[in-house]
Amino acid sequence: MERLNYNRMAGKNLHRLEALADGVFAVAMTLLVLDLKVPAAEAIHSDAGLAAALLALTPKLVTYLMSFLTLGIFWLGQQAQLNLLERSNRDVVWTHIAFLASVCLIPFATALLSEFVEYRLALVFYWVVILLQGLLLALSWKLSRKAGLAKDGLPDGIDRAIYRRILVAQALYAAAAALCVFSNWASIAAIVLLQLNYALAPRIGRFALP
Amino acid sequence: MERLNYNRMAGKNLHRLEALADGVFAVAMTLLVLDLKVPAAEAIHSDAGLAAALLALTPKLVTYLMSFLTLGIFWLGQQAQLNLLERSNRDVVWTHIAFLASVCLIPFATALLSEFVEYRLALVFYWVVILLQGLLLALSWKLSRKAGLAKDGLPDGIDRAIYRRILVAQALYAAAAALCVFSNWASIAAIVLLQLNYALAPRIGRFALP
Amino acid sequence: MERLNYNRMAGKNLHRLEALADGVFAVAMTLLVLDLKVPAAEAIHSDAGLAAALLALTPKLVTYLMSFLTLGIFWLGQQAQLNLLERSNRDVVWTHIAFLASVCLIPFATALLSEFVEYRLALVFYWVVILLQGLLLALSWKLSRKAGLAKDGLPDGIDRAIYRRILVAQALYAAAAALCVFSNWASIAAIVLLQLNYALAPRIGRFALP
Amino acid sequence: MERLNYNRMAGKNLHRLEALADGVFAVAMTLLVLDLKVPAAEAIHSDAGLAAALLALTPKLVTYLMSFLTLGIFWLGQQAQLNLLERSNRDVVWTHIAFLASVCLIPFATALLSEFVEYRLALVFYWVVILLQGLLLALSWKLSRKAGLAKDGLPDGIDRAIYRRILVAQALYAAAAALCVFSNWASIAAIVLLQLNYALAPRIGRFALP
Repeated sequence: MERLNYNRMAGKNLHRLEALADGVFAVAMTLLVLDLKVPAAEAIHSDAGLAAALLALTPKLVTYLMSFLTLGIFWLGQQAQLNLLERSNRDVVWTHIAFLASVCLIPFATALLSEFVEYRLALVFYWVVILLQGLLLALSWKLSRKAGLAKDGLPDGIDRAIYRRILVAQALYAAAAALCVFSNWASIAAIVLLQLNYALAPRIGRFALP
Repeated sequence: MERLNYNRMAGKNLHRLEALADGVFAVAMTLLVLDLKVPAAEAIHSDAGLAAALLALTPKLVTYLMSFLTLGIFWLGQQAQLNLLERSNRDVVWTHIAFLASVCLIPFATALLSEFVEYRLALVFYWVVILLQGLLLALSWKLSRKAGLAKDGLPDGIDRAIYRRILVAQALYAAAAALCVFSNWASIAAIVLLQLNYALAPRIGRFALP
Repeated sequence: MERLNYNRMAGKNLHRLEALADGVFAVAMTLLVLDLKVPAAEAIHSDAGLAAALLALTPKLVTYLMSFLTLGIFWLGQQAQLNLLERSNRDVVWTHIAFLASVCLIPFATALLSEFVEYRLALVFYWVVILLQGLLLALSWKLSRKAGLAKDGLPDGIDRAIYRRILVAQALYAAAAALCVFSNWASIAAIVLLQLNYALAPRIGRFALP
Repeated sequence: MERLNYNRMAGKNLHRLEALADGVFAVAMTLLVLDLKVPAAEAIHSDAGLAAALLALTPKLVTYLMSFLTLGIFWLGQQAQLNLLERSNRDVVWTHIAFLASVCLIPFATALLSEFVEYRLALVFYWVVILLQGLLLALSWKLSRKAGLAKDGLPDGIDRAIYRRILVAQALYAAAAALCVFSNWASIAAIVLLQLNYALAPRIGRFALP
């Protein structure tokens, strides 16, 4: 089989993986909003009542925004890695499928956290999903390098930059999650600030990942 | 990293952003219909009863169509901008992710409006989401220009045309939304007419955006 | 703007429209199954009980399969048309967005029909959505031709073939729907047979559309 | 029509089929998680109570992971076949649409199994969907070969390798499903192990399918 347009196939497979990932992220992003339930009409009799009901949705809106940031960050993180690959193999594809499985857990983890926003366990569960995503991205890069799937001409320090980036991000996530000892809201605020920082000032270290 | 097939990567990233956007819009469009609930079978005993139940869905059907138009218009608006870009950077990508987050709010805003179709606040909420989408598209173009990401050879007045287009559309949306002082239905009718006008006669000013 | 890589842009726009359509069809296909509700666990105490509950789902399964065929047929129909276009314009794109809006109604029409499978109105509603899809595809081709958007070198009789194909299919759908005067199940059987015929022996007339 | 850029069209059609498949798989994967219901807030008054409620979700989590593996395996299986095609025809496309219809049944079969995890019939239903997917992939390859749609230069034993691969996998699935005579959990464990084996050590026989 290797004689058969191998490169074209390999590139095609990468394209398929990207298309699957874009689909999973798009659905996960949109499903987040399904958790924003429209208030029950029976209980509401005025604009003021509706305003109160919408204000009561604020915790859900905050967790919605946090999860949208989470999904955006990991969508970009996966994209940055896939951009550096020339082709893929089964191990790498399966690591990415496992990564997508953890991405699919984000809407559940978000709904859990917004329903039990005062419960430490809900916060820890959310953090475990983030940890899992980081671990799987790191594993996927390790497997890609081991199998020589990366493009030629990558700069020397690229591996260290990628691992450090994941490590630093996960250390900050863990620190933010640890704040739940004091209060879940402190954790959530720290995670949101951390992610806004990544979104608004994403350059870390010498390499500006694409 | 810039030496590494930068242009190919940049184009690929644009393609990924487009794929994510197509996915989000596709899911959001389809989710709109989830709000069209099939009438409960127990309460209905004849074709006439079913006809009455379907007629009672008319407000939901109108808001469904309005939101489909909204999504179509902003899908085309984002597409027009992305078509003018040669490549993207993180700031622009994040502005578009924020834009997609506001797109994902449309099904919720639609469900809210169709449930509380007489409540001014529901109409204002819907309008705020539209306003947000317009602001984020304008911001995204501003950032793209500042970072020199647009294609070469764009006509001179293109920036003014883009901003004016957004400004005019948002001014008309705001005027339509303001009609809710009289009646939400007046607002909805004005928004639908305004959007049909965009869909059916989209040429405004000198530049016919693609 | 027309000087700016117009063909590339136009092709890109066609690609975006196709990507949006693939997304909408994929979500609509998958949403169909959401109507297959898992039986309530409380009422079931044995494999025999579960078998009875699954058998009771048969009407829903039949309408699910019918709608999957419907979506497959119109996905192919739209694809055949878009394959013949060199580029698109706003009118054509909006006709296709309207077509996608009617596609999004299929899960609702399916749920309605499977819930009210004995009610003539539910069958008529389903048929109206099919009629709408046919009309919008015909309109879209008419607008494409009027604006000269088709590829060069199309065979002479292509227009007649496309319109006749839509006309014949819609006439058969209308005849099948009219059987609901006798029984909805007669209509459903006729529609399923008709669609299986299209799926299994799709060549009609001189032109085998791609 | 065959004179009209037939190859380009055929390739485009393959691309559309892949895009539809990626969309269906992405939505099906994400919908799996919708079955993971957040525990009801009223019944829970402490982190310990939430932990107990999450532990009670374990069966659902196991079936979720099993189905994610199922979807990943069949996504790769379909991809491997489509990679070997130069173009498609209607029969092949319709076989793949039927395949996607069976893919869409996976979330339902998963929900059924996780709700009735002790019921043999639920396990058998799940297995029937897997069997259907295998049969449709085999049929699709048979039709592709009969119509001469495969790429040139495929190695001699490719057909035998493809059919044997499907046969072996389906025989193992059937054996795993047969374990439900003893216990559904034995079946589920066997299926998960079997799938992990495919995911982690996918090379079977002489040909490592792409």
